[in-house]
Amino acid sequence: MRSLASDNHSGVHPRVLEAIAAANADHAVSYGADPWTTRALELIQGEFGEHAEVFPVFNGTGANVVGMQSMLRSWESVICATTAHVNVDEAGAPEKLLGSKVIAVPSADAKITPELIRAQHWGIGDFHHAQPRVVLVTQSTEYGTRYSLDELRAITSTAHELDMYVYLDGARIANATAGLGCTFKEMTTDIGIDALSFGATKNGAMGAEAVVILNPALNAGETLGYIRKQYMQLASKMRFVSAQFIALLEDELWRANAEHSNSMAQYLASKVTSIPGVTITQAVEANAVFAIIPAAITPALQEVTPFYVWNEATNEVRWMCSWDTTTANIDTFVSALTSLTSGTGA
Amino acid sequence: MRSLASDNHSGVHPRVLEAIAAANADHAVSYGADPWTTRALELIQGEFGEHAEVFPVFNGTGANVVGMQSMLRSWESVICATTAHVNVDEAGAPEKLLGSKVIAVPSADAKITPELIRAQHWGIGDFHHAQPRVVLVTQSTEYGTRYSLDELRAITSTAHELDMYVYLDGARIANATAGLGCTFKEMTTDIGIDALSFGATKNGAMGAEAVVILNPALNAGETLGYIRKQYMQLASKMRFVSAQFIALLEDELWRANAEHSNSMAQYLASKVTSIPGVTITQAVEANAVFAIIPAAITPALQEVTPFYVWNEATNEVRWMCSWDTTTANIDTFVSALTSLTSGTGA
Amino acid sequence: MRSLASDNHSGVHPRVLEAIAAANADHAVSYGADPWTTRALELIQGEFGEHAEVFPVFNGTGANVVGMQSMLRSWESVICATTAHVNVDEAGAPEKLLGSKVIAVPSADAKITPELIRAQHWGIGDFHHAQPRVVLVTQSTEYGTRYSLDELRAITSTAHELDMYVYLDGARIANATAGLGCTFKEMTTDIGIDALSFGATKNGAMGAEAVVILNPALNAGETLGYIRKQYMQLASKMRFVSAQFIALLEDELWRANAEHSNSMAQYLASKVTSIPGVTITQAVEANAVFAIIPAAITPALQEVTPFYVWNEATNEVRWMCSWDTTTANIDTFVSALTSLTSGTGA
Amino acid sequence: MRSLASDNHSGVHPRVLEAIAAANADHAVSYGADPWTTRALELIQGEFGEHAEVFPVFNGTGANVVGMQSMLRSWESVICATTAHVNVDEAGAPEKLLGSKVIAVPSADAKITPELIRAQHWGIGDFHHAQPRVVLVTQSTEYGTRYSLDELRAITSTAHELDMYVYLDGARIANATAGLGCTFKEMTTDIGIDALSFGATKNGAMGAEAVVILNPALNAGETLGYIRKQYMQLASKMRFVSAQFIALLEDELWRANAEHSNSMAQYLASKVTSIPGVTITQAVEANAVFAIIPAAITPALQEVTPFYVWNEATNEVRWMCSWDTTTANIDTFVSALTSLTSGTGA
Repeated sequence: MRSLASDNHSGVHPRVLEAIAAANADHAVSYGADPWTTRALELIQGEFGEHAEVFPVFNGTGANVVGMQSMLRSWESVICATTAHVNVDEAGAPEKLLGSKVIAVPSADAKITPELIRAQHWGIGDFHHAQPRVVLVTQSTEYGTRYSLDELRAITSTAHELDMYVYLDGARIANATAGLGCTFKEMTTDIGIDALSFGATKNGAMGAEAVVILNPALNAGETLGYIRKQYMQLASKMRFVSAQFIALLEDELWRANAEHSNSMAQYLASKVTSIPGVTITQAVEANAVFAIIPAAITPALQEVTPFYVWNEATNEVRWMCSWDTTTANIDTFVSALTSLTSGTGA
Repeated sequence: MRSLASDNHSGVHPRVLEAIAAANADHAVSYGADPWTTRALELIQGEFGEHAEVFPVFNGTGANVVGMQSMLRSWESVICATTAHVNVDEAGAPEKLLGSKVIAVPSADAKITPELIRAQHWGIGDFHHAQPRVVLVTQSTEYGTRYSLDELRAITSTAHELDMYVYLDGARIANATAGLGCTFKEMTTDIGIDALSFGATKNGAMGAEAVVILNPALNAGETLGYIRKQYMQLASKMRFVSAQFIALLEDELWRANAEHSNSMAQYLASKVTSIPGVTITQAVEANAVFAIIPAAITPALQEVTPFYVWNEATNEVRWMCSWDTTTANIDTFVSALTSLTSGTGA
Repeated sequence: MRSLASDNHSGVHPRVLEAIAAANADHAVSYGADPWTTRALELIQGEFGEHAEVFPVFNGTGANVVGMQSMLRSWESVICATTAHVNVDEAGAPEKLLGSKVIAVPSADAKITPELIRAQHWGIGDFHHAQPRVVLVTQSTEYGTRYSLDELRAITSTAHELDMYVYLDGARIANATAGLGCTFKEMTTDIGIDALSFGATKNGAMGAEAVVILNPALNAGETLGYIRKQYMQLASKMRFVSAQFIALLEDELWRANAEHSNSMAQYLASKVTSIPGVTITQAVEANAVFAIIPAAITPALQEVTPFYVWNEATNEVRWMCSWDTTTANIDTFVSALTSLTSGTGA
Repeated sequence: MRSLASDNHSGVHPRVLEAIAAANADHAVSYGADPWTTRALELIQGEFGEHAEVFPVFNGTGANVVGMQSMLRSWESVICATTAHVNVDEAGAPEKLLGSKVIAVPSADAKITPELIRAQHWGIGDFHHAQPRVVLVTQSTEYGTRYSLDELRAITSTAHELDMYVYLDGARIANATAGLGCTFKEMTTDIGIDALSFGATKNGAMGAEAVVILNPALNAGETLGYIRKQYMQLASKMRFVSAQFIALLEDELWRANAEHSNSMAQYLASKVTSIPGVTITQAVEANAVFAIIPAAITPALQEVTPFYVWNEATNEVRWMCSWDTTTANIDTFVSALTSLTSGTGA
């Protein structure tokens, strides 16, 4: 089966699997005090700067909640786009665990702006009002768009001026960084991001994410260790999570994987843009293509290659490319799409 | 001091104070097993129907959270207007205690509609998505507007069709009921409201609200008693809370108070409507008047009679009348407003 | 009805009721920005020291949870006696709201000791283990016993040495302070108590408690205002809560009430100590008498004067005196007890 | 490195690793709708009965909290032994997430009994008191002891009589089942266990646990799916978790692994029992040996083979055997222990 439904439908990159197997040597101390975790943390610090503090966790929701807990008390709130994963796809985990209000702001391209932040920044010092404390940006976004470095810089400077933190949901941070042609550090540490999730799962790992703290005040008292444990995100045999990071970070496998999935999205977009009845709705800046297609052909097309309808009202659909998506996969898909749309007379 | 800032700037109606004093007789069992509470519950059941279950609490935020807890599990969500008290004025108490997502929907008149509900009702059965379970309406609203019985009926039938509950924030339920010229029962029980807060504090009480459960499924297993206690809303000397309800419900003092504050708002609106530079922005259907006035005169006018600026961008202000607001209070205020606006040349 | 079941079966002292009525003058700003609250805070600061920060709330459970929230993060724990109100009588409010573990330690006289604290102080720095952060003492205790100043000092010095805070549940702080013949300040501030609940309800108020912060670090960032609001403990017409404190603190009405209820307990104890079949089980150091009586006579005695069986296994009962308990009440009760016990041949 | 410190210091059984690699074929639907998860659920249902409902999760703490959430509302409590993992080693996750009180009961052998349950079962129907709802048993226990089938049956019948549920923490369920020589079903479903965690990680998996619901009322409304997601325990590429269960359940690899680690504990116990100065403190019924050894030799012995001191006061230590512990490992360890104890003259 080949899918365009999600970048977690793909499997594990062979080098990640090899690294896991290589870590299966003898006994090792659990909960992170093992050589593989030491090495993974060094590599991640190598990417984000030596002061970065790194906490491997199981999944993206876990990373987001653990990461934001370092910034928030329950009477403080998070500002994010309506489309944000934390708002629509985490079953209310942020509210349940953080106890904090999530203020979801409509944004056509899934990106937050300084103006959107300022519009929600009111009632400061009024104890009846949940105090805005965190701006969450997703990079690349849930719409496959991407903040420029300048856009991110405008957000961090606005947030910091307003005594807020910026948290970056990096479930697809590799796609954004590869797309920008920069380093992780240039896109986060150097710009003033306070903390982020470093996602590996969608980029060829088996199941590995990490909370990365860039603002050292957020781990004062070394609270993250307790938060991660209490929030049930601490792996006992952590070496097998850490090994995945090692594989992706050594020799920049992460970048190769991300560049590949990004380029597959470009390839797909280039192929469908001229098909009558197909309208690309978002800038293709990462590994996703969003498009409106005729509703009538959707089921038949999904049988060829699975994908999700994102907006039932408009029949906007999402096509997501993975590290292992091939041009052949896309050619098959585009061929079916072409055939089906011509059949509908669209 | 006479204030138009809030209907909780007013004091306690003399008959409420007398009822409190009358309840101060000898010893009585605590936590509600006293004759005054028995009487208060009977009176409230008399208003809402014999099957209503009633739980006196301390304040409006407490009532809302205790009441909605009967309807919600943490992975379920509440749909309300952006203006709702639970969304902007409870410091995130619903998120913290319920653990539930609050979905705030923009509405120009602070009222929810079936269309607004349906637009948020998606992802049903998808365990990644917090499941919409409660529609919250405020009656009368935070903008001093009022749902008609037909509007409420449309909401309850929509919500029930969608397997959702309707919770009514009745901090100013007396104003709405008096304004509609109906009974509490006609506006709630008969229409299918599932639960509500019955607010007395803003209508002449000292501090008395009650959760009223109309849908008996919501108190299956008698869970409300535990919720109220765990949520720290159980008064030990409850007779003094209950006595307040007795005073307001016997001889319909509640209606007299509400009709008075409503009529004062009408009087105020009628006086200011012709003042140049003053624009009333919301229908005056309860005890509040919202208006845009010149920003320059606001501080001077607030010194005459305190009130709040509701929207700093537009200088929309709120003037709130109480059970004890007098025409003389309003005349003084209108006179100052007239003088100040003419002074500005507005 | 006259009751020995609870000190919240009593009503409101006339001077408290007068103070409430006197506060019912005109309009006043809500949520604490009124002259009565200003005065109450001054009076409470007068008792505990000028640096004390004071937050009136509705009830004892609310005070305990709001107060301890200033000290705790969810991965930190509270050590208290098994008998503590927070452990057995708050329906799990501390766990639900604080998210913190409550470690209940058996203690025959309801008092915590340095040894009991140290026995629970382990796993420090181990992020698998909830970190002990708060020692809770109840003064006077749920068994009517009382810590001496030296006992409290030993606890605060132990706790502070271990990097823990001491929270004092002062639901009956007046009884303890009056019993010790000292000032509030000598029993708390001077000894190093970090925060406490200042209970008035059981001492003649209608419903008034306050969180008092003595360690200024606990309100850094002025977080208590947000906590109190989010935890639904903020009164809108606060002047009527504050007036109760004014009445009790002016002219030391609190001490007169507490001395009276304490002396009634002494009177009761002196009368029953020689009755065959009655064994006093706890030192009578506040307003409670605990005794084992024949189970067979309990129902008949409860009909004369209500009281609770505390331990069904041993038929240990609790007799609680109030600010308005009279010697006549006790004589009636003792007479019935004498008669019933002689009837049983005990 | 060879360790006796924990059974999660061991690595992954080769057949588990092979199963993971075999699952890395092409694309598969995420979040559990993949063929490997279907197969794993069938296999687990094969063990526990066709009505069992199975939810793979990441780790033991996650399994315990998700599983118990199906049984508990926040005003209900859990009774467990003081030694229980949920009480001492989960950083307060149960309290934080469930909001429920954990009542920890001292037990010399880490086992709960009907008498211990009944002693905590009081205050029923009293809304001031958190209502006991769950009895948690760990099988095998944190002390390496094991409930007999009769002991478990006595607990479930007591709990059910008291309207409580029984949750089994099965982090080492394989060791208990293998030790009893029975099936999983005989030890759980047939005895009336309501839900359990099915632990694989300590028995040769990489990181795989599952919540198994045996009482179908606990998943009424299919709430577990939402709970697992909101509690951040839902794996995106779930096939790689499920594959681990497949490997362990096919051909009863789980039993072979557990029998091996159990037998290694027996071997170790048999070797040390005659060493002067070494006293075995708990029945050796699973894969752990608890013993008191001279404190002076502990550091030197830990350098030979790591292990934990369980009780610093008595120098009771824990030696934990794994699926891959060898007799050679133990011989090396016992030799060092013998040498060190003779050196101390113990």
